[in-house]
Amino acid sequence: MKNALLLATVGLSGWLVGSYFEKRKRISFSNFQNNDIVKRYPGIPIFGSLSAATVIDDNLESKIVQVQSRTSEIMKHGFPGLDEIRSFDDFVLSYDKRNRIAHWVFEHLTAERLKVKENVDRSKCDFREDKSIHPYFRSTNEDYLGSGYDRGHLAAAGNHKLHQRHCDQTFYLSNISPQVGVGFNRHSWNRLEKYVRKLTKSYPNVYVCTGPLFLPRKEADGKKYIKYEVIGSHDVAVPTHFFKVVVLETSDRKLLLEAYVMPNEPIDDNVPLSSFQVPPDSIERHAGLLFFDRISKSNLVSVNGRKTSYV
Amino acid sequence: MKNALLLATVGLSGWLVGSYFEKRKRISFSNFQNNDIVKRYPGIPIFGSLSAATVIDDNLESKIVQVQSRTSEIMKHGFPGLDEIRSFDDFVLSYDKRNRIAHWVFEHLTAERLKVKENVDRSKCDFREDKSIHPYFRSTNEDYLGSGYDRGHLAAAGNHKLHQRHCDQTFYLSNISPQVGVGFNRHSWNRLEKYVRKLTKSYPNVYVCTGPLFLPRKEADGKKYIKYEVIGSHDVAVPTHFFKVVVLETSDRKLLLEAYVMPNEPIDDNVPLSSFQVPPDSIERHAGLLFFDRISKSNLVSVNGRKTSYV
Repeated sequence: MKNALLLATVGLSGWLVGSYFEKRKRISFSNFQNNDIVKRYPGIPIFGSLSAATVIDDNLESKIVQVQSRTSEIMKHGFPGLDEIRSFDDFVLSYDKRNRIAHWVFEHLTAERLKVKENVDRSKCDFREDKSIHPYFRSTNEDYLGSGYDRGHLAAAGNHKLHQRHCDQTFYLSNISPQVGVGFNRHSWNRLEKYVRKLTKSYPNVYVCTGPLFLPRKEADGKKYIKYEVIGSHDVAVPTHFFKVVVLETSDRKLLLEAYVMPNEPIDDNVPLSSFQVPPDSIERHAGLLFFDRISKSNLVSVNGRKTSYV
Repeated sequence: MKNALLLATVGLSGWLVGSYFEKRKRISFSNFQNNDIVKRYPGIPIFGSLSAATVIDDNLESKIVQVQSRTSEIMKHGFPGLDEIRSFDDFVLSYDKRNRIAHWVFEHLTAERLKVKENVDRSKCDFREDKSIHPYFRSTNEDYLGSGYDRGHLAAAGNHKLHQRHCDQTFYLSNISPQVGVGFNRHSWNRLEKYVRKLTKSYPNVYVCTGPLFLPRKEADGKKYIKYEVIGSHDVAVPTHFFKVVVLETSDRKLLLEAYVMPNEPIDDNVPLSSFQVPPDSIERHAGLLFFDRISKSNLVSVNGRKTSYV
């Protein structure tokens, strides 16, 4: 309890939660207190995140403007949820404090950003704790040790090669989930990640939202149960499945959507990726998220390769 | 997918998620767009909630000030989390869109507020959907039908007797969780609720936070699993346990804290309530929440009846 009291967290003073329309309005945040930066940039909310360590330097203001601009790009099509948002230099995530893994991670890929840079080296990256997460809810390398699971990336390291720093940040454990290694993380999930990268050759902008799922299963007693393993002393949740929702933007601003769900288990390399496509709303319902709410439906020309009725 | 695109939800435009301190700062929200009320009350955020139906009337402004003031009272000791907050006239809740039940519900009880009013009648209340929740994530009466579980209140109906409206609002299904009826909801859990009400005779202010838990269990294979039933077409989660954290405020502003966890199963009426007391941080860790972060530790004189080291 002592720690809980010492570590200030989600306190909000004197806010009104009024109420009214069934259809929620867009909101923006401001008024971050006790903070010079925010005074200079009204309307800009600041959450603790991993950029922390280096943001506090002489170039603080320009750095903030830079991260703001990149976050807007990545999140162009809306936030799927607003729980514990962390913005990194090249991806944005929402953290699930109860499961000790992300709710979702959002990326924006382009051919230009994926070009191999000589000086970016994945082998220089180390998995490390995300100290912006309260110690109660933060996963550690020890949690994964001996669990039998890989430390699987949600924002793939291979998607963030513009700077070493971008690649480094994908190794924060807030971006990591327990994944079956052989047959999943190292094979079919990797196959899906590569496929998504390849899409940047056909589409100028590729937006990707990736996250865990905990799907119910009917048991012998006829009832439905959600069951998943938790590992380590922090009880890090092992998802039953992972999802990836992809929005492809054409040069004339048309949008194509693809949605995948893969079980967190060994998958035969020969199963085609298209067989993992699902209706996007099935992911939304199970994840408790809403994707791409800012997408203009008149611009959405296809879902999972099938023309939409909006065309 | 069509629905998902049609129903605007958590979109945020152009916000910066910067970053920096490990220790999070208190934040407040403002700038709710397209909303006259907010223009007149800068700094006041408005979320959809159940007060909706009646807030849109001639007394809108005074109503908002009233709800704001009551929300500040109820949440005096801080928000345990910030996911999907809904503020009702006499209690505040955070909704878990994935589990279709609340993360937590906060109440503020006083002897005065608990006095029986002739004109408040629980039998006039009906369980009903909370239309401020997106249809994907909203539990319905049909979900509970034939499940074998009671529609158990988190904010107890008996705690909200000042106006019929307050009592009515406790019957919104966002305040309801599947609870075992005989031996739990109708007996030992009710015993705990009554005990908490009785505390208002000894303490001028009683703050109560109530919520579900999904606790892991070690199985025969030596691994830990979280397993829980889900009911109805919306897969409403059946918690394995429920918690109640109580802060008692004395007239000289000293604070006493009590924390309880009860399994969602029949409990013998003779088991003393004190045997369900747990260290508050064990609830925080499992629930992914942080309670009472605004409590001054120098004022906290006891936890579960034992003097704290701060005294």
